[in-house]
Amino acid sequence: MGEATENGSGQQKWRFRGNKDLTTASAITVRGVLNMLKDNLSKDDPRTVIPLGHGDPSAFPCFRTTSTAEDAIVDSVRSAKFNGYSSTVGILPARRAIAESLSKDLPYALSPDDVFLTVGCTQSMEVVISVLARPGANILLPRPGFPYYEARASFSKLEVRHFDLLPDNGWEVDLAGVEKLADENTAAMVIINPGNPCGNVFSYQHLEKIAEMAKKLGIMVIADEVYDHLAFGSKPFVPMGVFGSIAPVLTLGSISKRWIVPGWRLGWIVTTDPNGILNRSGVVESIKGFLNISADPATFIQGAIPHIFEKTTDDFFSRIISILKHTADICYEMIKEIPCITCPSKPEGSMFVMVKLNLLMLNGIKDDVDFCLKLAKEESVIVLPGTAVGLKNWLRVTFAIEPSSLEEGLRRIKAFYERHASKQ
Amino acid sequence: MGEATENGSGQQKWRFRGNKDLTTASAITVRGVLNMLKDNLSKDDPRTVIPLGHGDPSAFPCFRTTSTAEDAIVDSVRSAKFNGYSSTVGILPARRAIAESLSKDLPYALSPDDVFLTVGCTQSMEVVISVLARPGANILLPRPGFPYYEARASFSKLEVRHFDLLPDNGWEVDLAGVEKLADENTAAMVIINPGNPCGNVFSYQHLEKIAEMAKKLGIMVIADEVYDHLAFGSKPFVPMGVFGSIAPVLTLGSISKRWIVPGWRLGWIVTTDPNGILNRSGVVESIKGFLNISADPATFIQGAIPHIFEKTTDDFFSRIISILKHTADICYEMIKEIPCITCPSKPEGSMFVMVKLNLLMLNGIKDDVDFCLKLAKEESVIVLPGTAVGLKNWLRVTFAIEPSSLEEGLRRIKAFYERHASKQ
Ligand SMILES: Cc1ncc(COP(=O)(O)O)c(C=O)c1O
Ligand SMILES: Cc1ncc(COP(=O)(O)O)c(C=O)c1O
Repeated sequence: MGEATENGSGQQKWRFRGNKDLTTASAITVRGVLNMLKDNLSKDDPRTVIPLGHGDPSAFPCFRTTSTAEDAIVDSVRSAKFNGYSSTVGILPARRAIAESLSKDLPYALSPDDVFLTVGCTQSMEVVISVLARPGANILLPRPGFPYYEARASFSKLEVRHFDLLPDNGWEVDLAGVEKLADENTAAMVIINPGNPCGNVFSYQHLEKIAEMAKKLGIMVIADEVYDHLAFGSKPFVPMGVFGSIAPVLTLGSISKRWIVPGWRLGWIVTTDPNGILNRSGVVESIKGFLNISADPATFIQGAIPHIFEKTTDDFFSRIISILKHTADICYEMIKEIPCITCPSKPEGSMFVMVKLNLLMLNGIKDDVDFCLKLAKEESVIVLPGTAVGLKNWLRVTFAIEPSSLEEGLRRIKAFYERHASKQ
Repeated sequence: MGEATENGSGQQKWRFRGNKDLTTASAITVRGVLNMLKDNLSKDDPRTVIPLGHGDPSAFPCFRTTSTAEDAIVDSVRSAKFNGYSSTVGILPARRAIAESLSKDLPYALSPDDVFLTVGCTQSMEVVISVLARPGANILLPRPGFPYYEARASFSKLEVRHFDLLPDNGWEVDLAGVEKLADENTAAMVIINPGNPCGNVFSYQHLEKIAEMAKKLGIMVIADEVYDHLAFGSKPFVPMGVFGSIAPVLTLGSISKRWIVPGWRLGWIVTTDPNGILNRSGVVESIKGFLNISADPATFIQGAIPHIFEKTTDDFFSRIISILKHTADICYEMIKEIPCITCPSKPEGSMFVMVKLNLLMLNGIKDDVDFCLKLAKEESVIVLPGTAVGLKNWLRVTFAIEPSSLEEGLRRIKAFYERHASKQ
């Protein structure tokens, strides 16, 4: 057969082309920025790369998941009961286990019908953004935040408005700012608690104020609790759903962080809304509609959920929490010794801390991105530029790595500073 | 705290609402129709339900997947090497294994960079439709077909045009019809081979003609080969990619059907396009962009793919093929004995056959949907109405079930016919 040619002898013309919207939407993900930094690593540096950029400690031996979770998967596969398609909302035993587990921290009981399984919290965000996107609508997102929300909103053509998290108030929500941003087309506000990228944990009182503000504005709260229970400071983790009777809450979560298995891709959306407002307003029906035409988490992983939730012992959770507390301490103390970066508040949760970059103390460093690119090249340390999470000239540092690597990474950042320090 | 009320004393007003587009888009899935039929089953019938409606035989002991595949998953989980996030296109060893396996049936070698992993072929379809959707564009879909394409096109606002599969020509594509439908905004045509819902297998010659037509029209071919290798008639399975040098082909597939593990959610999109046209036209970049903001298959399932592809023996595949051949024969022969349905051609692949309903031979049955509803209620047999796949007054019958159940199901359909037969 003759070969197809694009502009050759046959003058073959192909009518299809790529979709620019996708390139635009996906340009702003954390993964994209980290890949750029990785490309900037120096191949001549014999030292190992220290990854302080991403929230996935699963590769470090001290963060290995519990054997209970592995056993649950093995039993589920070996049973051959979960090889088939699941229902699009997820299998009942898994939804029941999640409902029961989350109910423990709430003043009301969730039913399995409140729970929708997803391919990780990533898909939970996708579902929620798609459901809320309609012409003219807008959503309020935190700054700094998690750029996947912006990426999905861009793809779905949902207008984004940013409210601030206040570094001098322990990264609390600027509620006055929220009130100014909202209008009659605002559908929801997103909070991430424990916080990414700030490592903060919202107090009971602050969460209650957020709910009151949402009620005043007539909007729902989307509570991204993918780091649920990863709190190790003075404030306990309080789920936003506690205030679901003030304003309706969609709670997003997954097993990725608490069990340190982000590759297992099992998350959820939960209607923590005891007054049933999300149901009556058609939001629940839209969630189901979207899930009907979307990818599902693997059925045998769903099948393992009851076992994982019921059999994981507190041992495992406390061990992880105590490592995180330890590494957060190391991080906070060592950052104090690096003059060009300052940390407005000690991290109390999640796996990250935001630090402010003082460019005046550095020579020949243009901005946060430039800092991170040079740091990658010269020191083989990856740190996320604040620009990627909405705050220029800040840095997001992950402390969820092996303590000795963390120390090594921070020592290298200090050396980098010393080499680039401006003479003041 | 005061309780939120919707229209109570506080006159609380909530501004959000559901997204009607999602309800519309998801109304037309096979799962939706099957759920409606299930709701119509009679609770008083002591007999077991015979599911001739869907393509998931995994629950039947004779269709249990090979222990090789189970072992691969267990080893992968136990290794703890695949607990972390994967790259958005999938991990290299899995992409390499798929490239090598598919290359065996092609006149050129695929590279791992041609392969993109997905959460089952379901997500492959989602990606492809999203990538091709731009204002004004259209796509050509087969009728009868697989309604998930229509659902995703509706969601993405991609215009759909239907070409016919011709029952009297062994369900070949009506190529003259394709030529009439296409215009300068047509991006692609979809073929499903082996066929769902028709159970046909396209010949080498017919596939070549499809490629020539695509070239003439300047469009790409999307080859849904989720039933790849499930061919047991006179014609062997030939991948569309064989003709990728005539017109560019995107090959979609998964382990769901060949390994009978639809719940494992691992699929792929492969650029079978030796001339690199999809790359140069930006389609590949759009696929990557979409995957950057989408859910991924579980990493440890990706990790199991090399083992699954390399170690599964021909034994397993031939056993499955011979069961399917046997059940297809049973189905074809027993349908001959049911006067109100006729089968235009013997199924040679996949798991389904389309049969035509003769309403004149039935009393008080309005149409295919009515037939299926009454059949579910009276005989506890689930069959998919042709309306769900685009052909009114046809039925899609699955033969991929345990032979004894299949026989029982067809006997009940016959009894149903006899009870409702019109006196002619
Ligand atoms: C704030 C936030 N939400 C959601 C996610 C996605 O989590 P998952 O692994 O469950 O998809 C992440 C992952 O890093 C996150 O940081
Ligand atoms: C024609 C066709 N394409 C795609 C799929 C989806 O397959 P998967 O299980 O890999 O998502 C199916 C499932 O039945 C199908 O019949």
